[in-house]
Amino acid sequence: MYVVLVYDISGLGNGQKILGKVFKICKKYLTHIQNSVFEGEITEGQIVKLKSELNKLIRKNIDSVIIFKSRNEKWLDKEFWGKKDDALSNFF
Amino acid sequence: MYVVLVYDISGLGNGQKILGKVFKICKKYLTHIQNSVFEGEITEGQIVKLKSELNKLIRKNIDSVIIFKSRNEKWLDKEFWGKKDDALSNFF
Repeated sequence: MYVVLVYDISGLGNGQKILGKVFKICKKYLTHIQNSVFEGEITEGQIVKLKSELNKLIRKNIDSVIIFKSRNEKWLDKEFWGKKDDALSNFF
Repeated sequence: MYVVLVYDISGLGNGQKILGKVFKICKKYLTHIQNSVFEGEITEGQIVKLKSELNKLIRKNIDSVIIFKSRNEKWLDKEFWGKKDDALSNFF
């Protein structure tokens, strides 16, 4: 399964620390393509683990994570306008 | 066509002003669902207009816009972990 994950972690309280931890967890499973955006192929089992790790960190009332799941990467075309994150070079 | 658009506008120079303008332009065509994330149904013609409006604003070397296009919203499942943007209430 191909997913795109975007998060918005509030700067309130120890938000900065949480942001760093969320980033590291996402990097374990997905590829970082923009500020708070990750993408990649992932199994249902991995999504369950990713979700439980993130849910331990994020504050449900002020932090937001959205995950878009597509059964097939081919069903999702991607276009870059402006800067392409250098981490992407292995994609194109 | 269903799209998800994410942007990362650098704070350098008049980045703050550009950010506000980019937000307003995206809001004309799509629904704001998270910090710098928009989604919605859009026609090919509207995407061309959206792209040309944004391209006049963004600085190609430091700002980034990524648009994920799916021919059918059904091909993309969406899950929220944590806060759901209140603007979404009209969706569910």
